[in-house]
Formats: sequence, structure tokens, C-alpha cells
Amino acid sequence: MNNFGRLFRLSIWGESHGPAVGIVIDGCPPGIHLSPEDFSRDLERRRADAPGTTGRHEPDRPIFKSGLFKGKTTGSPLEIEFLNLEANSSDYEDIKEIPRPGHADWAASVKYKGFNDPRGGGHLSGRLTVGLVAAGVVAKKIIPRVNIRSAVVEIGGRKNFRNLLQRTQKIGDSLGGIVECRAENVPPGLGEPFFDSVESLLAHAVFSIPAVKAIEFGDGFRSARSKGSEFNDAIIDRAGRTKTNHAGGINGGITNGNDLVFRVAVRPTASISLPQRTIHLAQDRIVTLRLAGRHDTCIALRMPVILEAVTAIVLADLFLLGRAADILSRNQVVKPQRGKSLS
Amino acid sequence: MNNFGRLFRLSIWGESHGPAVGIVIDGCPPGIHLSPEDFSRDLERRRADAPGTTGRHEPDRPIFKSGLFKGKTTGSPLEIEFLNLEANSSDYEDIKEIPRPGHADWAASVKYKGFNDPRGGGHLSGRLTVGLVAAGVVAKKIIPRVNIRSAVVEIGGRKNFRNLLQRTQKIGDSLGGIVECRAENVPPGLGEPFFDSVESLLAHAVFSIPAVKAIEFGDGFRSARSKGSEFNDAIIDRAGRTKTNHAGGINGGITNGNDLVFRVAVRPTASISLPQRTIHLAQDRIVTLRLAGRHDTCIALRMPVILEAVTAIVLADLFLLGRAADILSRNQVVKPQRGKSLS
Amino acid sequence: MNNFGRLFRLSIWGESHGPAVGIVIDGCPPGIHLSPEDFSRDLERRRADAPGTTGRHEPDRPIFKSGLFKGKTTGSPLEIEFLNLEANSSDYEDIKEIPRPGHADWAASVKYKGFNDPRGGGHLSGRLTVGLVAAGVVAKKIIPRVNIRSAVVEIGGRKNFRNLLQRTQKIGDSLGGIVECRAENVPPGLGEPFFDSVESLLAHAVFSIPAVKAIEFGDGFRSARSKGSEFNDAIIDRAGRTKTNHAGGINGGITNGNDLVFRVAVRPTASISLPQRTIHLAQDRIVTLRLAGRHDTCIALRMPVILEAVTAIVLADLFLLGRAADILSRNQVVKPQRGKSLS
Amino acid sequence: MNNFGRLFRLSIWGESHGPAVGIVIDGCPPGIHLSPEDFSRDLERRRADAPGTTGRHEPDRPIFKSGLFKGKTTGSPLEIEFLNLEANSSDYEDIKEIPRPGHADWAASVKYKGFNDPRGGGHLSGRLTVGLVAAGVVAKKIIPRVNIRSAVVEIGGRKNFRNLLQRTQKIGDSLGGIVECRAENVPPGLGEPFFDSVESLLAHAVFSIPAVKAIEFGDGFRSARSKGSEFNDAIIDRAGRTKTNHAGGINGGITNGNDLVFRVAVRPTASISLPQRTIHLAQDRIVTLRLAGRHDTCIALRMPVILEAVTAIVLADLFLLGRAADILSRNQVVKPQRGKSLS
Repeated sequence: MNNFGRLFRLSIWGESHGPAVGIVIDGCPPGIHLSPEDFSRDLERRRADAPGTTGRHEPDRPIFKSGLFKGKTTGSPLEIEFLNLEANSSDYEDIKEIPRPGHADWAASVKYKGFNDPRGGGHLSGRLTVGLVAAGVVAKKIIPRVNIRSAVVEIGGRKNFRNLLQRTQKIGDSLGGIVECRAENVPPGLGEPFFDSVESLLAHAVFSIPAVKAIEFGDGFRSARSKGSEFNDAIIDRAGRTKTNHAGGINGGITNGNDLVFRVAVRPTASISLPQRTIHLAQDRIVTLRLAGRHDTCIALRMPVILEAVTAIVLADLFLLGRAADILSRNQVVKPQRGKSLS
Repeated sequence: MNNFGRLFRLSIWGESHGPAVGIVIDGCPPGIHLSPEDFSRDLERRRADAPGTTGRHEPDRPIFKSGLFKGKTTGSPLEIEFLNLEANSSDYEDIKEIPRPGHADWAASVKYKGFNDPRGGGHLSGRLTVGLVAAGVVAKKIIPRVNIRSAVVEIGGRKNFRNLLQRTQKIGDSLGGIVECRAENVPPGLGEPFFDSVESLLAHAVFSIPAVKAIEFGDGFRSARSKGSEFNDAIIDRAGRTKTNHAGGINGGITNGNDLVFRVAVRPTASISLPQRTIHLAQDRIVTLRLAGRHDTCIALRMPVILEAVTAIVLADLFLLGRAADILSRNQVVKPQRGKSLS
Repeated sequence: MNNFGRLFRLSIWGESHGPAVGIVIDGCPPGIHLSPEDFSRDLERRRADAPGTTGRHEPDRPIFKSGLFKGKTTGSPLEIEFLNLEANSSDYEDIKEIPRPGHADWAASVKYKGFNDPRGGGHLSGRLTVGLVAAGVVAKKIIPRVNIRSAVVEIGGRKNFRNLLQRTQKIGDSLGGIVECRAENVPPGLGEPFFDSVESLLAHAVFSIPAVKAIEFGDGFRSARSKGSEFNDAIIDRAGRTKTNHAGGINGGITNGNDLVFRVAVRPTASISLPQRTIHLAQDRIVTLRLAGRHDTCIALRMPVILEAVTAIVLADLFLLGRAADILSRNQVVKPQRGKSLS
Repeated sequence: MNNFGRLFRLSIWGESHGPAVGIVIDGCPPGIHLSPEDFSRDLERRRADAPGTTGRHEPDRPIFKSGLFKGKTTGSPLEIEFLNLEANSSDYEDIKEIPRPGHADWAASVKYKGFNDPRGGGHLSGRLTVGLVAAGVVAKKIIPRVNIRSAVVEIGGRKNFRNLLQRTQKIGDSLGGIVECRAENVPPGLGEPFFDSVESLLAHAVFSIPAVKAIEFGDGFRSARSKGSEFNDAIIDRAGRTKTNHAGGINGGITNGNDLVFRVAVRPTASISLPQRTIHLAQDRIVTLRLAGRHDTCIALRMPVILEAVTAIVLADLFLLGRAADILSRNQVVKPQRGKSLS
């Protein structure tokens, strides 16, 4: 369903061409300072006008409707909205009859019995990732010492891809890419051995991002070609540091304190200008479809900040869970801890 | 935490060297016929004595303690246990002081503050996957028309790997591998666009299996090197069938009725006989560790039946969820919208 | 945390004096017709200007921001907001220093470490029940044949309470009351024997409504003074109808098809005009507090429509869960098994 | 469904006449000392041979199958089982055809489509409360300073009920009762304003206990007959202590640090020896039913220890949740805290 997390819990809502998209964050601890400026850098990165990203440009200024008072989180549900100002629905009339290849038009129509909003993909739109990025900004404040960085490492099979992007854009095609994410200074001991392994939770969150088709942790697919004597990371000190990091910072589903490293494959943008063959459902015949409008040539370019966000969301949740379980280091006395104004 | 699923819900428990391991399945519909014989084939496949799998051989006969009456599920929680008869704990005395490379000894010790059971890995043991396989047998009965098959496609980088396995076993090293899983006749319209995308749920479940380090759906990492004009699957009929299946049967997180296809990378077995360097925590010095006992040369060989199980578990849950949402096809109100065009 | 439900799932957000309050409904099936008019009657009942209810009057017109397209639910998250237009915060400056008796000022301050929004109670405000009522309207559409009615049966210990209300209002005091709720035509077989018994879920939802201090099902507290020979309801036909209904329509946590009946006790409004003694936290001395503003004399009067709403929410969720589990009748006709005994 | 809790999470399984009943506790922190002796007092209280409790006497010795190592919790799922040694199924042959008044026979048969185990009520049996009591023992260790006590305060409408019990037992009838529960030294600030109010969670857990039909917190139903000037508890010091405790220790769903007080109504035992009228489903006619076997005259007598258990379970969960949210009082440094053996 449309929520995620155990303690730091997200519910997303909105449609591409509705009045707004938003996110409700439940379980955000009180007392965290948040200002619109805290969000501007990451939101800007998501929108950024890189070669290969085009299309609509929303101002993306967060509107806080709940959970923030005098600039600090209250501990109540935090609701953040983003207005949809540039939605233009004229192009989407035909989607229900002529499902676009590579899109979820047909699958969504079955799932929602034909009642889904087809405009701009409706709820199934990359537009909703703006809420994920916003939640990521909040999550990063819960784990301030963890340093998360993500970057595109490959597009269309190349590490130097600027020319390729321009050529592809010109002919109306699109490109896939690979994005890497790395988190430093992750506390050891986060995650569970089975259903909530760190890999399980990160993969769950990452595959919530439209267009992701694969994820690998540490050596990932290369590990399938390794021997144990090569893959095992030798532990070199009592802090658990390892000489190599083939495991990507996770053993048995649990963080080991070394850098958390994963890579995702992003498929090429589904919307392309080139003619494509598909079915006309009402007429029951194959037709040639030409999609109008301008589209990202490579959505992998928007991915780094979103990957950072979902990584922060998962780690913040696990960090809070870890605190809860750590009852042995309490002093047993549960002193009410209130602000100065009450003392 | 240690459970999974929305409606068809699993809780696993047990330790490698405890008296038993088990699984509680909540939300299993009443009236499903189950006999020990239903389980024997899949349980046997998990244990199977392939070249490269060695070690302990438990009889693995399911004991039903709750939820089964006169051979049929009652609708109450289904509890299934497997006795641990061959546990031998003599080899595991030193683990807490000398964490094994590639294992979670160190990470688990931090997580559990040193209170975890180290014998055979305790709760962090492949032994617990017997419960997953059992749950998979039940799940398959909920979706009898879905055909799920999985196979090892590569070990140590090779498609013909028998000799490689024997040589590696002889020198006491281990090998990784790649396992593919495919589900045919999957109902379209399962899964959610964001947090519970089919990829999210399958990846979550698959990364719950120890030793999995990567997953890719459809073209996966190859999609990152594709153009949109190559990757998009042309829809060729009103049933949503596509000419190709680069998407692996999923669009926008939702099944599209074509085969569900994914591949996972399994890292080489962590336990090897070759000497390895690690830290002695009490003595704070690097030592050379030689692991006694016999271990799987390649755990990927045990993986197919487990992958099938978790795939069935996820699809059964989504199938039940889909039924719940489908209130329009009850006699209460309504007729399926667009029934005609999809038939 | 701030959500509720297994399949029909609610997340509420908002504060009394923030810009808006809202609710996100996840798991709402597609194809349900919803118009603002559907909501007006129940929303009006909640606001109704009965003797004993005073204070602010918001227009309470639902704003649909997600999940509704061409007047029908899409199956995506349904977001409904209500603007706060009449919030006036001048009266609430002192709350953090001088906690009001009967209110959660002190407890909330501890919970939220002093960061909560104190204006009008912030998130802890009856204002948020507008979202519950809206969700109730949606829920009622999922179970159209169930007839839910609720009424105030007693105020201040009296069944005829009009004069009492006026006198109490004049002197600035407040009154408690008892509200009964009854649901007819409830499908039998809903609910679980233990943790999700119908009583558990209804009580959970009902105690989410501010000011409720007690609930009893069927005979409730009277059952404690009964003999089994008096309390047991004799079954009089194969449809499970009973001669009496001491059990309130629930046996073993499961609906039995007879009317679901429960009563709740609503404590008197906490805000009264009469002087009250409390602590001044900063000055550490007892002070006399006089609350300005006008307040409901009896919040029980607003309760019936809210009780109906949460009852519909719980029953809709259980109805959807029941459909999911009913896989044996998956030729789409939902025949109760053992049809003979039910016919 | 059959689980409960956010962090300290229970799954129960078992049937009255199956081989065993059990409970899986997930989220139990590591390092808690547990021995069978810790359980014996509470388990003995549940079984206790008071006048009015009769029937089968199981030894009820806890068997730990997972999550305990060297006498301390490991942090992995804790599985506790109790063997059913005295189950005698001969009396229960007719239940499916002749549903017993006051029992869930008919409702369960509808819910489970006739597949449920009818022997001794199957899963719908007070037998399963042995697992709740065991979980309560564990929960109490998480909140050692909270003192929870419960007692029967009334049976059959009387405070002195010994003779009444004997007379009722002799004629084969049964009696209801009222049980009070009180928790001292509860940390303030636990619970949520809406869906997870302390009242919501406690009521949810309490109504999971078979035979409970009503709950009231603090003044409960009496509050409905009070004025605000009487009901509001005056705060008398900076620790939030109140002069009276009409609210039962909870304001706005949140604990206020005063004693938590609630009372429950327990209906008379459904099984009585006196003849009762009911339907014979197969024959479609009203018959007179005489139940053989010996039954509790008053199940309220077994209730105190179970109420204490569920109260501890809820408070332990809320205590862990409170720790997680309390990130401001951390020193930000997440030091791995491991046992001495690793330092």
C-alpha cells in the first residue's frame, strides 16, 4: 500500500495533474529545526536542468500544513505539500484507449478497473518523488552524522556521456543509466537478519522510485563470479573496519559500520518521440503511436538526490528502531525531559 | 522486524542450534488442503545433496501445531515447525572473540549487545529458510494457476560449472552464482505504484534470504545500457501481451500479465576452509582463522526453491489484496469497468 | 502512531490553528462515486448548533486533493482537506506555563518535549474529527447495506436534558453524556478471535475520539451482574438470529449477524468558565485559572456522527478483509460455505 | 489479524485441543534475564483453583524455543510454547451442528466457512491467554519500575461473593464480574492523541481477552453523569500530580504520570450446565442443549493476571516507542554498546 516505514513512516498522495502532491510523515521526533531553505538544495537538485532533463518546471516550494511550529517539528504528523502549477492535461486524452509502450497505462487500467486518473500518469508519476526528496531532507536531520552521497556513474553504457545525451535527445530517443549511492559513518548494528534486512528495506524503498529495474549492494552481481577467498572482507580492527568492502557495509542484513554502497539501474525514459507500435484497445488493432511533448532524455540524471533521500529515510527509521531496542544503556530512570520553558 | 506481508503474513523464529525453527502464517484463508507430502518435494529440493552442497542433513518433516484440522487450513494462524536434530555446537565457541570474515558475527554482536546466540549463527542462519520454503508451499496453493520456476544459471561466472565446483570444494574455497526466477500466468494488476511495487515487495522478500547481494527485474542492469526505443515492450493484443519482455512483467510497479522475471546474485559461501585474517577482539590483534567443519561450496545451489517460495509468498499476498479491493465485481454494486475491452 | 486500519487505512494530520486539517485514506477501492454533497449531511451534523454546542463554525467543505477523478475514487490515496478559517490564537498564550485541568497540556508537553503547538490544543484537538467524519462517509459507501445510527441517550445522568444544558451553560460548567451506536445488517463472520476482535477494533477507533472514557458492547457492565442463563442469547434460526441481544452482535470477537450495539461515555468538556486551581509551572505555585472564550457545554452532542463514522471505518475494513480471505468462492460469487445452514 | 504491537509485537497461535499453544514475541530487546521461575507465579495465578474456577489443569511450564540464550533474551524472536496435555475432545462433536448459545460457534463457522477446529473452541479458546500471560511476564521486565496490580472487585453484582459463587456452581449457572487494574509509576508522555491513544491500545488489548464486554478508564461511565467542575483533576505540582484522578491517569490519550486505572466487565461464562434452547442446523429445528463437562463458574476470577499482562504489554511497547522518539536527549554519539566479552 502507499506507506512505508516502521517508526519514521511516510504516506504519499497526489497525482501528476491534480492540485498538489504531498507527503505525511508520521513518527518524526519533536524538536527538529526545519525551514524552507533546508529543502531548497535537494529540491533544486531534483529539478535541475541538466542536459537530458527537460519538461515542466514547478517551483517546488514546500508548504508545511501540519507538524511544524515556530520552525521546529512538533512530533505530530508532518504534512508537506507541493503545488502542481504547470500541469497541462491536453496531451493525455488517448492513454486509456492506446496504452503507451513502457508505461503502466495498461497495467494500471486493470488494477484500478479503469477509474485511475490518466492525466500525466495520475498517481503513477515521477512527480510524486518530490515528496520523497522532502522526506529525505527531514530524515537526514535525524541522522546528522551520516554522510550520504549519490552520483550518476554511467549513461547508455558510457562513463562520459554528455555528447551521447545530446544526440539521443535530438533524435527523440531516451537512455538508461546507473546511479551509485554511498553512505559514510553509518552506525553499525542497524537492520534485521531476515525480513527487515538493510538490503530488504533499501531495495523496498529504492524500487518505489519509478524506473528503477535493478539494485546491487557492494560487489553485487560481481560477487556471483567471485570466490569466497576473494569476497570475504578481512576485519582489521576492533571497530569492525574491513580491509575491503565487497559486502557494501552489510553482513547478515546488518550494517557493519563500513560504508554502505549500492548501485541501481535506471531504465530509459518510457516516453520517447520516436514512433512506436501498440494496441488500440477500442478498435482492437495495432497502431503507430507518436508521443508529443518534451520528456527527459535520461531520468537517471534526476535519480541521485532521490536515492539519497530514500537511503536517509531507511537509515533514520532504523536508527530510531535501534534506539528503542537499546534499553540496557538507559539509566532506567525515565525522567520527563521538557524544554527550558517548563522547568 | 521479523515478519512480512500484509494479509498473508509470516513470522519466523528459531535458531540454528536451538530445538527447532518455525514459521507462523497469519491470514491464510480457510479450506486449503495441506499434507506433509505437499511439502516434501520443495523441502527435499532445498536440502538436496548437489555437488557443492554438504553439511548437516535434517529430515525436515513439517510439524503442524496450529491452524490445520482434518487436513485443511482452518483460517487461524498456521504454525509449522522443523526440529533441529543434527545441531552440533562444538565448533562455535570462539565466534564472539574472533569474528569470521564475511559473516555477521561482528555486526550481530553490536546489534544484539553481545547477547545473541552464536552457535551456528543463531538466528542468523540459512537454517531458517526451511520455514520460508514451507510458507511457499502454502502460498502456491493460494495461487494455483501461477507457475513459478527457478534455476541456477551461472556459478563462478560459468554456465557449465560442475568441474569448477569440485575443484573449488577440494581446495576449501567457495563460489557465488546467479539464480533466475520466472512466474508464468501472473494475474495483471497486482502491486502498487510506489512503496509496495511488485519489485519493492519481491526485492524485500528476496533480500531476506541470506547471501543475496543483488536483484534485477527483466533486463535489469542491461536496461541501463539500452535506449527507450529498444527497451519499451510493444503491446500486441488487448490482453496486454508484449512482443518482448524487457520490463520483466512489471510496469509502474504493477504486474502486466506477462511473465515475471528476475535474477539474483548470490555471494560465495562465507565459511571457507582456507586460512583468513581477522581481528581477535579480546587480544586486539590480527590472527589467522581456519574454519573447521564442512560447508556448502556454493549456496546458490540451494536458492531456486527458496526464490520460488518467496515469489509465491509475495504473489499470494498481492492476490489476496487484489481480491479485497475488487468490490465492484461483487453483486453489491457494479460491473467491471472496461470489462469488454479487456476480454 | 497516527494511522489506523489494515486495508482501509487512515492517516490524519493537522492542528487546530494550522492552515487546514486533513486525512489520507489509503486502500479505498476504485470506482466509488463521491461528491461534496455526499459529505454535507454528516459534516453538518458534526457542526450542528445544538443547545450546548457553541464556538467556532467552520464551513467544512471537503477539498479533494488526490484519489478522485471524474467524481469517482481512483484507487490511489484519497486526500481530503478542510481549511481552518476561524482559528483565533490569542487565547492560548499561557497554556504551556499554566496547564489547564482536564486537558492534555501537561501530558503533551512531556510527550513532545515542549515543542508541540499549543494553539487550540494543536494536534490534540476535536477539530481533527472532521477528517474522521469524512472518512466515515467514504466507508459507508463500501458497506452500503449496513445501516449505522447513533444517538445521545443521556446527558448529565438524565434522558431529558434540554433544561439542564441551558442552566449548565449559563453558569459556565459542562456536562458528560452517554451515546449509543447501533449497526443493522452487519455481515456475520467479521473480526478475529483475539487481537483484532470486533470489540478491539471498535474500541481502538472509538477511544481515538477525544473525550471518550468508556465503552460497553451489548449489555456491557450489566453483563457483569448477570448469570449465564440470563446473558446467553438463544439462537432461534439458521441465519444465526438470536432471541435477545445481550452480546451486542458479537461472539468471540466475531460478528454474529445480529445488530451491533455499543455505548460510550463522554466526559464533560474540559474547558469550563468556572475558576479552577492549577500549577503555574514557571512560578511553581498554585494559581486560579479562568478560561476565556466560549466552549461546548456538552461534547457528547457532537459525538453521534463521529461514532457512526468510526464504526463504518472499522466495518468497511473488516468487510474488505473478509473478501480477501474468501478465496474458496473465487468464481466471484461470494456464497457463504455451509450455504445450507445459512439459507 | 493475530498480532499486536508496534515494537514489542506478539503473534499468538494454537488451539485448545491441538498439541500446544504459543506466542512469538518480536522486538524484545536483548539482555533481559528470563527463567521458567519468572513465569511460574503469574501462570499459577491464571490457573489458580479459586472457587468458581474448575476444569482442566495444565502444568503450563513455558518451553522456550527461540530467542533465549544462557538465560537471557537474544533480541531475536522469542518463542514460548505450552503443551496441551489434558485436552479431551470427546465432548465437542456436536458443536458444528448445534451452536452453543453465548459461544462463537455459529459466528466462527461463518467466518471460517466451516473449516475451523471445533474441539474446545479451537483457536477461539481461553486456553490461548496463557501466551498473553507469558508475554506479560516479559513485558514487565522491560518496565521494571511500573507496578501493575489487578483484582476482582465485584461478582454477580456483589463485593462479597464467596457464597454466591458456591450456590451458582451448584445449580450449574455462571456469573459475570468486574475486574479493576491499576498501574503505578507509569512514565508520563506515553501514547498518541488519536489512533494510538493509551485508551485505544489498552482497550484493543483488553478486548482481545475472551469474555470482556466493557472497559472504562478512570471515572468511566460515571464521568457521563459529572460536571466539568467535578471531573477535571486539579494539577497540584510541577510533576503533574493531580489532587483527584477522575481521568484515570490519561489526558488526550497520553499518560499524565498519575495512576493508570481502568475497570472491565466480564460476562458470565458461556458454558453452563443448565438446559438451553438453540438451533439444530442440520435438522433446522430448535432443540434443548445440555452441556456436559465442568466449567468455570466465573471467568472473571482468572482475569486479573491477564489484565496485568496486557497492560504491561501495551506499556512496554509505548515505553520502547517513547525511547525511539526521544532523540534530543541522546548525546548524538551512537557508541556500539557491547558486552564486556567484546571490549
